[in-house]
Amino acid sequence: MANSVHVAGVGSTSFGGHPGRTLQSLAVEAARAALGDSKIPATRIGCVFVGNFVGGIMTGQELLGPIVAADLGLKGVSAIKIEAACASSSAAVRLGHKLIEAGAEDAVLVIGVERLTGFPRDSLTTAMTAAIDQGTEGHAGLTFPGFWGMVMARHMHLYGTTREQVAAVTVKNRQFGAGNPLAQFREPVAIEKVVGSPLICDPIRRYDCCPATDGAAAVVLTREEIARQYGSPSVRIAASVLVNAPVRITDYAEITTHDGTVEAANSAYQIAGVSPGDIDVAELHDCFSIAEIVDAEDLGFFAKGEGGPGVACKNRVVINPSGGLLSKGHPTGATGCGQIYEVAMQLRGCHPNQVANARLGLTHNGGGTAAAVTVHILEAVS
Amino acid sequence: MANSVHVAGVGSTSFGGHPGRTLQSLAVEAARAALGDSKIPATRIGCVFVGNFVGGIMTGQELLGPIVAADLGLKGVSAIKIEAACASSSAAVRLGHKLIEAGAEDAVLVIGVERLTGFPRDSLTTAMTAAIDQGTEGHAGLTFPGFWGMVMARHMHLYGTTREQVAAVTVKNRQFGAGNPLAQFREPVAIEKVVGSPLICDPIRRYDCCPATDGAAAVVLTREEIARQYGSPSVRIAASVLVNAPVRITDYAEITTHDGTVEAANSAYQIAGVSPGDIDVAELHDCFSIAEIVDAEDLGFFAKGEGGPGVACKNRVVINPSGGLLSKGHPTGATGCGQIYEVAMQLRGCHPNQVANARLGLTHNGGGTAAAVTVHILEAVS
Repeated sequence: MANSVHVAGVGSTSFGGHPGRTLQSLAVEAARAALGDSKIPATRIGCVFVGNFVGGIMTGQELLGPIVAADLGLKGVSAIKIEAACASSSAAVRLGHKLIEAGAEDAVLVIGVERLTGFPRDSLTTAMTAAIDQGTEGHAGLTFPGFWGMVMARHMHLYGTTREQVAAVTVKNRQFGAGNPLAQFREPVAIEKVVGSPLICDPIRRYDCCPATDGAAAVVLTREEIARQYGSPSVRIAASVLVNAPVRITDYAEITTHDGTVEAANSAYQIAGVSPGDIDVAELHDCFSIAEIVDAEDLGFFAKGEGGPGVACKNRVVINPSGGLLSKGHPTGATGCGQIYEVAMQLRGCHPNQVANARLGLTHNGGGTAAAVTVHILEAVS
Repeated sequence: MANSVHVAGVGSTSFGGHPGRTLQSLAVEAARAALGDSKIPATRIGCVFVGNFVGGIMTGQELLGPIVAADLGLKGVSAIKIEAACASSSAAVRLGHKLIEAGAEDAVLVIGVERLTGFPRDSLTTAMTAAIDQGTEGHAGLTFPGFWGMVMARHMHLYGTTREQVAAVTVKNRQFGAGNPLAQFREPVAIEKVVGSPLICDPIRRYDCCPATDGAAAVVLTREEIARQYGSPSVRIAASVLVNAPVRITDYAEITTHDGTVEAANSAYQIAGVSPGDIDVAELHDCFSIAEIVDAEDLGFFAKGEGGPGVACKNRVVINPSGGLLSKGHPTGATGCGQIYEVAMQLRGCHPNQVANARLGLTHNGGGTAAAVTVHILEAVS
């Protein structure tokens, strides 16, 4: 009999620049906040999973599992780092979910962390391409602005999506970011500023890109009975899905449809017994403004090709009220846990940009060229 | 009711120099061999865990989970990288064991892989220190030869261990390596050559150190019923333990006793219902020759301080008949799976250095300054 898995507590640092902070100090800050929020004693934690992408490349620090566990005063636990590029910490949540659902663990602490600011811009772009196959497309010079630039050009070509519709994603998410104290960018931006910003990789411009961000977020997972025992302010995980999908764009049937997102979303809706129209609030992977349009289509919020006119309108589902990666920021390894933090706060009714009567939330997190994709569906408990 | 977890199949590349090979090509070679050995169809695999330590730092490649899964033709699986320094792939085995024991997965493919040869020596030493806390002891300049040099000096001081006793570990393991076709060093070495080799970090000399190694090893984990269904040549996992332990040597009570090893071993013996004297064959983490002495003591094969005269003698337990890290080589992320490969072959009675009537085997793998430690106890089935 499978256990009902709950997010019993969440914690987060602010997202933005944290010069001089180590990965472990950010991770420990978020973890302590999540443990405190959950009211579950640290002694109940059996596994510590640290989601992190380029900590080795950028800071020279690996072995984050035992280092963070030691700093938290935890002994004798299974402490490991989990890496799935920008989906590292949500993939770790999926693994923790499996363990608790099957009864293998009572409580799992999942932390996501990254340090990306203060490095030379070239070294950061190069580090990010660690999520592209270096034997093929990485060797040929593909970068993530390059990948998403192709996706955007193709989406405009196939579906008549306009430059202004894509820019409207940034405008919307900056507006949300202005209301989120954890967000890196808290200034609204006008559409003219987005379309007039410097060209990065045609047709992508600077304000279409998420920033380099430092930060950490953490969640405590447990089964329903334990959350109740401690009076945790929990939300239920109605579905937790992680899939792998094509790694090379040459393996895509069509680069404006991301099979991993479609497959993960369909599985998640089926497991939760809900449909896209039931979702009140979604945090999805808007690493570039065009990504929010593609993802919203692949998640079933819009038919393919209708995301352009759709996402900036008033929809039933509120997308990225945190500000998203574009405005809250994208500390890659931390983003997955950060999204769950945001949706949990919405379902607990205490988000600074609260969606009225939010009962059902979704997170979508992608690693690489949507090669590792997670979808989580969360449900309010009380 | 917990499932009985089996290693249904194993595979390995040779260990040594593989210039020009990518991480994924090595990983795929080992994985295909393990899947073929197990006779379990790849479609039964639900998770692919790739254990890897410094692939990002040395080769710029992360996201190995989806990349390797795609190259194996697997779709829709949970494919992630797991990192716990030199214990990365054995930590991944522990996680796979948990999932199968609890019934969360039918079959899990665990692969360990690393590329370490052909890089400048300084960059390799620096990369390895990613497993030392960069905020404290890494910043102060500690390296792994430095750590083990202190351990060796202290062991000699406290217990009267001699230079020749430590050198005898290398001599023994090189002798074993000569008989193992997968080993990097296949030439025996005389004790005079070890004690006369260049000083690396007093009292550690060159022949006290494991080499830089490329390689991959893989194991297929499943429950007993599935292994039987496919006629897999399986061995049973009688115990699988992963613990975290002090990360900084300043947190050690005594650096010649590694608490993580003691704790992991005691747990494993208790779970398996056996004692150290029951073990026929052990593959343990001899990254330096002194490490085999310390580990053999901490695993309970010798009383503390008696490993020096003990390990080179004819003992009931045969230690590192693969040649160990000293002779078979140490492709860090691959070592844990490599040890399980070796012990599985012993228990199946088909090892090139076969231990007569081996029924019970143990693997011991340590990450960092024994900050992440796994112990596996494996048992012959038929």
